[in-house]
Amino acid sequence: MPETQGLLVVKLGGAAGIDPQDVLADLAQIARAGRPWVLVHGGNSELDAVSQRLGHAPRFVTSPSGHSSRVTDPQTIALIQMVYRGRINNDLVLRLQGLGVNAIGLSGIDGGLLRATRKEAVRVVEGDRKFLLKDDHTGRVHTVNTDLLRLLLRNGYHPVITLPALADTGEAVNVDGDRAAALVAASLQATAYLNLSNVPGLLRDPKDPTTLVTTIPRDGMDDVEALAQGRFKKKLLGVREALAGGVPRVILGTANGPNPVQAALDGQGTVIA
Amino acid sequence: MPETQGLLVVKLGGAAGIDPQDVLADLAQIARAGRPWVLVHGGNSELDAVSQRLGHAPRFVTSPSGHSSRVTDPQTIALIQMVYRGRINNDLVLRLQGLGVNAIGLSGIDGGLLRATRKEAVRVVEGDRKFLLKDDHTGRVHTVNTDLLRLLLRNGYHPVITLPALADTGEAVNVDGDRAAALVAASLQATAYLNLSNVPGLLRDPKDPTTLVTTIPRDGMDDVEALAQGRFKKKLLGVREALAGGVPRVILGTANGPNPVQAALDGQGTVIA
Repeated sequence: MPETQGLLVVKLGGAAGIDPQDVLADLAQIARAGRPWVLVHGGNSELDAVSQRLGHAPRFVTSPSGHSSRVTDPQTIALIQMVYRGRINNDLVLRLQGLGVNAIGLSGIDGGLLRATRKEAVRVVEGDRKFLLKDDHTGRVHTVNTDLLRLLLRNGYHPVITLPALADTGEAVNVDGDRAAALVAASLQATAYLNLSNVPGLLRDPKDPTTLVTTIPRDGMDDVEALAQGRFKKKLLGVREALAGGVPRVILGTANGPNPVQAALDGQGTVIA
Repeated sequence: MPETQGLLVVKLGGAAGIDPQDVLADLAQIARAGRPWVLVHGGNSELDAVSQRLGHAPRFVTSPSGHSSRVTDPQTIALIQMVYRGRINNDLVLRLQGLGVNAIGLSGIDGGLLRATRKEAVRVVEGDRKFLLKDDHTGRVHTVNTDLLRLLLRNGYHPVITLPALADTGEAVNVDGDRAAALVAASLQATAYLNLSNVPGLLRDPKDPTTLVTTIPRDGMDDVEALAQGRFKKKLLGVREALAGGVPRVILGTANGPNPVQAALDGQGTVIA
């Protein structure tokens, strides 16, 4: 499968404070050098902003295991499609086209790219109270249409992937972007999975960037688990899943600064290998 | 090129009063029978609604030749991407997936699918006044990436195409959907170009559906030109362009009612051949 030899899967976070231009310019350079890549991106911060403007303020819940997730009612899943696919994905593809990269945007629905199991109910903890959130449009990706991605890569297109995913029950569902990207990397047998966000990597003290954990051995994930807070817990879950799926190298790095993709490949950030 | 033998290009209008379900169910049946198709769709009415909700009311201008077009400032082109690609396109692809069709949504930006020349200025007539509208994000499609469409068709994917287009100058631009669909049909050497909307076809009296023009000979477009009003002028321009591009059969029909695609193919509507 020469079209995916040396393949990179890059997840670009959607938090505030991330300017995608550095990542895109670097990806354009890597594409010119002939190395294939797939970009997966989020859009949480923009989604929050548009939801507010449309009078549908975002809500979050916490699971018993401490993971935070967005309440995804029918209005929210419609907003996710408008913002992630209609706004951010189109913008990234447009910028890449401007950089000479023949990018093609895809949501998980297109060509059944990201197939998911919809959650029947989401378990929620609020203080002392535990309850089930029903009719939530959330799920977990179980299968990636690698045929479609290989077809595009083989023919010179660079896939830019975003949410939502396509549930087996037919609906669009919100899924965790970090874990979806990890499954894309594992399914394509990528050489490396890079998760770039607004922090330099896993920090021992989230407020102090000098406390970066620079390397984690493959079997050392349990030892660092306790360091992760908030959304970083899902990132580490994605790291575990990518490793378990056979990706030899996972790097958590920053999306900001010059050549952030190359920098991560060179070992800047938290390298798990 | 067996993947496009007997190919249909169907344009589904975005005016109010169109329920896409009949067209989609019919397209699913046609896909099951092994006939290839490409769907191109609009979304004017939904765009107007979302623009209103976001406090950016739509504005229209009229050209010296009497064509009406949407004023497309930067906010409007962003809204077009959110509504056309993020909402309507995703919804149509999701419904088709539910009908067992492996549909894939694409805007004109994806893979450089619809390449356009951006208009430097739009000539506008308002009463006695004539002026130039500058910085408008509008253009005209000049090239369709048929390689991408053939690649997808050959591999069992059904393309669902929408605006905006990708200008040679790098921006996203609004283009006329009827004319873009006509160019898709001509570029793919489609067997037929079907333009389905909320009216039964070209009417001698736009208020009276019994005045349907049932057939127009290929060389008879000049004779019916005067009958077209409002947005129908652009539809007829698209008809001319499809014919000039070598499409042997163009049909203007209704999107509503049972099996509207098959009905149009069977000659219901205005047939130009």
